Amino acid sequence: MKKRIAILGSTGSIGQQTLEVIKKYLNEFEVVALSGWKDTKMLQEQINIYNPKVAVVKNEVIARNLKKNLNKKNNIKILWGTNGLINIATLEETDIIVVAITGIASLIPTYEAIKRGKRVALASKEAMVVGGELLVKEAISKNAKIIPIDSEHSAILQCLKNEKKDCVEKIILTASGGALYNFTENALKNVTAEDALNHPTWKMGKKVTIDSATLMNKGLEVIEAKWFFNIPANKIEIVIHPQSYVHSMVQFTDGTILAQIGEHDMKIPIQYALFYPNRNTNNFPRLELTKVGQLTFRKPNFSKFPCIKLAYQALEIGGTMPAVLNGANEIAVNAFLNNQIGFLSIPQIIQGTMKEHEAKYNPNINDILNADYWARERALSLCANTKSSNK
Amino acid sequence: MKKRIAILGSTGSIGQQTLEVIKKYLNEFEVVALSGWKDTKMLQEQINIYNPKVAVVKNEVIARNLKKNLNKKNNIKILWGTNGLINIATLEETDIIVVAITGIASLIPTYEAIKRGKRVALASKEAMVVGGELLVKEAISKNAKIIPIDSEHSAILQCLKNEKKDCVEKIILTASGGALYNFTENALKNVTAEDALNHPTWKMGKKVTIDSATLMNKGLEVIEAKWFFNIPANKIEIVIHPQSYVHSMVQFTDGTILAQIGEHDMKIPIQYALFYPNRNTNNFPRLELTKVGQLTFRKPNFSKFPCIKLAYQALEIGGTMPAVLNGANEIAVNAFLNNQIGFLSIPQIIQGTMKEHEAKYNPNINDILNADYWARERALSLCANTKSSNK
Repeated sequence: MKKRIAILGSTGSIGQQTLEVIKKYLNEFEVVALSGWKDTKMLQEQINIYNPKVAVVKNEVIARNLKKNLNKKNNIKILWGTNGLINIATLEETDIIVVAITGIASLIPTYEAIKRGKRVALASKEAMVVGGELLVKEAISKNAKIIPIDSEHSAILQCLKNEKKDCVEKIILTASGGALYNFTENALKNVTAEDALNHPTWKMGKKVTIDSATLMNKGLEVIEAKWFFNIPANKIEIVIHPQSYVHSMVQFTDGTILAQIGEHDMKIPIQYALFYPNRNTNNFPRLELTKVGQLTFRKPNFSKFPCIKLAYQALEIGGTMPAVLNGANEIAVNAFLNNQIGFLSIPQIIQGTMKEHEAKYNPNINDILNADYWARERALSLCANTKSSNK
Repeated sequence: MKKRIAILGSTGSIGQQTLEVIKKYLNEFEVVALSGWKDTKMLQEQINIYNPKVAVVKNEVIARNLKKNLNKKNNIKILWGTNGLINIATLEETDIIVVAITGIASLIPTYEAIKRGKRVALASKEAMVVGGELLVKEAISKNAKIIPIDSEHSAILQCLKNEKKDCVEKIILTASGGALYNFTENALKNVTAEDALNHPTWKMGKKVTIDSATLMNKGLEVIEAKWFFNIPANKIEIVIHPQSYVHSMVQFTDGTILAQIGEHDMKIPIQYALFYPNRNTNNFPRLELTKVGQLTFRKPNFSKFPCIKLAYQALEIGGTMPAVLNGANEIAVNAFLNNQIGFLSIPQIIQGTMKEHEAKYNPNINDILNADYWARERALSLCANTKSSNK
C-alpha cells in the first residue's frame, strides 16, 4: 500500500524537493495534502500534478481564487490559515506529515500530528527548538515518530541506527562556519547583510543563512539534537567543517566515530526521512571524495560567535528559555537584514532578552507561544533602543 | 556467563593487543587456550596471567621445555604444531576463536573452527584471501560467524550494520598508500627494503609493511572484502587516504556514505570483534579531528602499483587463483626483503606465476594448499631467474 503524505510548506525549498523525491516514487507515495503560503501559482501547479485531496493557503480570499483557477476535475478541498494546517496535519488518511514551514508556525501542526500518533518528517527547526521537550514527551506517549530532515540530524540518525544509546560518547555536529568564519572580530563589527548572506556551501533562505553566519544555526541544532536523540548538551560538540560534506558524526564509547558523508543535496535526507528505516535507490549526484580532495576540521570560536554559547545556555536553563532564544533571534536577524542593527548586536539582543525572562518549566503549548510572543516584543524594543543609540 | 576465548597467535602484535582488551574485561571473558610460535617466554608469561587450559607451541621439544618451566599449579595441556592449533580452534568449551597467526597456516584452524559453528574473530588476512569462498560457504552451512579484526573490514562491518545488502552501492577501502606512494615510477626501480619499510601511519610486521608499499595489502583486502561482505569486486573501490584515520567507508544506493573513523589503534577493531554486535566502553586514546585538521583522499595509481590490478584479476578469475596470488606474493616480498629482487620485480613475479596457473574451481582445502605450494615453488624459481638475470 502506498504511504500517504501531507506536506506542510510544499512551495518552499524543502517542500519542492520533497515532491521531487516523491515524483520518482509515485508507486510508493500518494500526496494527500499540500500547503503553500506565498507562491499560490506554484501550489496550483503542484495540485495539478499530484492531485491531493486537500490544499491549504494563507487566507480565505486566496482560497477562493485558487478554487476558481483549478480545473473542475480537481475534486479538492481548499482550507486556510493555522486551522487549515492543523487539519492536514491530522487527517486520518495520512501516514507521514512532512513539516517544512518556516518559523514557529510549525509548532502547532507538528504537535497536533504527534498527538494523533503520526510520523512527522520534520524540516522546520523551530518546532523542535521551542517545543522539543513537549513534542518528545507527547511522541513517546502516543507512539509517534519524529524523523529529522535537517542534513545534520539525518546524519546523526544514520550513524546512531541500531546502536545502543548508552554507547554514545558524543554527537559531533559539523558546521560550515557560515560566510564570516574567517572575519576578524573587528571586521565582524562592520559586516553587512550582503556579506553575511554569502554562504560558502549551502543555498538557503535569508534567515537561516544569517543564522549560519552567527553560528546560531548550529546552536539551534544543538537544541534539536538534544530532543531528537535524548542526548545531554554536554555530549553535543560542534566542529567547524567548511566543506560541509561530513554532515555530522557520532563518537561511541569504544572510541569509534561514525560519520555520514554526502553531496550538498537535501533530497538525500528528505528521502531518508520518507523511507526510514530503509534506504532506497536514487540517481542524485554522488560525492567523489577523491575529487573533493580534502576535508578539514577546526574548533569553533565561541567568543567570536557568542550565539552558540547562548543556545547552550538556553538549553541548560530549559523550559521556555529556548523559545525565548529563538524568538529574540528571529527579531534580531530581521533587524540586521533591514540594516537596523549591526551584526554584533544580534547576540546582544538575544542575551538581553534572555536575561529578562524567567523560564517556565514543563511548558504546555500556550506557555511556549506566550514566551515566544513576549521574547519578540522584548527583542523588538531592544532593537529599537540599539538603533536609536547608534544614531 | 563469560565468553570463552582461544587465541591463535597470542604472542604476535594482534594477539598481545587482544589480551590487553581482555585484561580490561576479565569479568566478561575467559582465556581457554593460547598459542605462540616464536616467543615462548612471552607465552609463558601469558599462561601465568590468564591460566588457559591448553597452550600450543611450534614443536614437541619446545612443548616439553615449556611444561618444565611452568609452575606446578598450572594444570595445563601443552600441544604443538598444526594439530595443536586445530585442537584449540575446535575445543568444545570455546565461544570465540581469535585467529591471529601469520600466513596460510591460519587457513586450516579457521576452517576447522567454522566447521564446528564457532565464532571466528579473524585477523589473519591469508585465510580469507586464499580460502574465502570455502570458508564462507562452510560458515553459512554451519551457522558460524566470521568477524573481521582488520581495521578496514571492521570499519565496513560497522558501516553496514543493519543496513540491507541491496542498498550497498560500493565499498570504499581506504589505503594509506604505504611508504612509497609519492615516489616516481623511476625512483621505484631503485627502492630498498629500508625505504619500503618506512610506513607513514601504522607500525606492522615487515611482510605487511612491504605489502602496504606495493599496495598488494589493499589488493588482498579487496579479496577479503568480497568474501566477508559478499560484494562483487566491481563494487569495491580503493581510495588513497594517507592519514589512515578513515578506516573505510560504505556508499549506499541513496548517495549516502557512512565512514568509520578513529585512532590508529588495533584494539578498537579487536574489541569490536570480541563484543560484536555490541559496543563497550574503553579508555583507548580518542581521535580529535580538530587536532588532525585535515583528511585527504586521492585516486590510487594502478599503473604505478600494479599489484592492485593483479589482486582484482585473481579475484575475477576466482577458484585457486587468489591462493596463487598470495603464495607468489609472499615469496616475492621475501626475496625483495633479502635484496634478491628489486621492488618492481614483485608484481612481475606474481604475474608470471599467475599466468602459468590454471585455476581450479570450487576448491577444497587440499586444492587450495596445493595451489599455494605450487605458486611458492614457481615464484621461487622465477625469483632465482630474476636474480641471475640481474647479475
